Amino acid sequence: MNVRSVIDGDMARTTGSHSDITGPRIREVALRLFAAEGYAAVSMRKIAAEVGVQAGALYNYTPDKQSLLFDLMHSHMEDLLAARSEAGTTGTPTDRLEAFTRFHISYHEERPHEIFIAYMELRNLTPENFAVIEELRGKYEDELSGILRAGVEAGEFTLVDPRVATRAIISMLNGVTTWYRREGRLTLTEVETIYWDMVRKAVGA
Amino acid sequence: MNVRSVIDGDMARTTGSHSDITGPRIREVALRLFAAEGYAAVSMRKIAAEVGVQAGALYNYTPDKQSLLFDLMHSHMEDLLAARSEAGTTGTPTDRLEAFTRFHISYHEERPHEIFIAYMELRNLTPENFAVIEELRGKYEDELSGILRAGVEAGEFTLVDPRVATRAIISMLNGVTTWYRREGRLTLTEVETIYWDMVRKAVGA
Repeated sequence: MNVRSVIDGDMARTTGSHSDITGPRIREVALRLFAAEGYAAVSMRKIAAEVGVQAGALYNYTPDKQSLLFDLMHSHMEDLLAARSEAGTTGTPTDRLEAFTRFHISYHEERPHEIFIAYMELRNLTPENFAVIEELRGKYEDELSGILRAGVEAGEFTLVDPRVATRAIISMLNGVTTWYRREGRLTLTEVETIYWDMVRKAVGA
Repeated sequence: MNVRSVIDGDMARTTGSHSDITGPRIREVALRLFAAEGYAAVSMRKIAAEVGVQAGALYNYTPDKQSLLFDLMHSHMEDLLAARSEAGTTGTPTDRLEAFTRFHISYHEERPHEIFIAYMELRNLTPENFAVIEELRGKYEDELSGILRAGVEAGEFTLVDPRVATRAIISMLNGVTTWYRREGRLTLTEVETIYWDMVRKAVGA
């Protein structure tokens, strides 16, 4: 059950009415509350209260809280894959690795709640929903693994284990969201450049 | 209010009695439940039920749930700093960086719940407790920053920004706990060696 499709369907029927904004608002509130308090601690009643609707009205948009969580994680992964695909990648493996590094940092910097939930609330997905999210995550990681393998084959990179290197690089880049602040001493582009310097050297390029 | 001191005090008074094991058991159960379900979703009643005592009995050991969370995070950081200090570090900055890398991976691999909570439940600490934990975390990170700065000064490392590099390396190493399984294709020592290869190259050593 995909909440977004339910929401979009409803929006299509009621264009111009108040409910246009209710679907996105539910998603936005749920994302913020799940990130701040954790999925298990946030009730549908609480989400409804924050949105400013009756608890019953929430069920016009989403069949249950699990569907809401799944939808947030699912659309995050689909949006990530779409944005990554639009960004495109050409050039040598080194060029493509630089593009991936900068893309990953800048994309996630704007979405700290999404990335927090994407990792933290995996434990609260049903096994079926978990499998779907893991497959999408695998697709994203495969892009990086592909670049690393291409670099090794082309003799640009020296890597003991491209699969482990994929995980190591993604963990390293994800960490930016835990400390970076826009009002701090570094611009995001400076941060990207520092990380790219480390990633490039780490793969032996 | 430090729960451990309350527990230890109680244990000292009742050596040999049943309550010897109640304190450690409460901590163990709380750690597991917080990691599985999240701090906000786990009630004192639930912890008591899992331990097999009345909810009221829990308050002989800990004044409240916040103190229990703080104690788990605080003792994790103190144990980490003590273990790190025992491991000692001598040799060149490169030797010390290798020792830090291997120590961090192997220490945390045995404590996935602790590291999960150490990051995830920061949001649920009171500001006073948060400040204490952040200071200890800063102490640990300073050890790595110190090694990196010494390496740059000695001309062994080339790093644009040792402070950012500290965070990048710690994020990278923390990631091991999210994917490593003992029954998988790699031993922990092999994983340490792969990560050390990447860390060494990332700092330009």
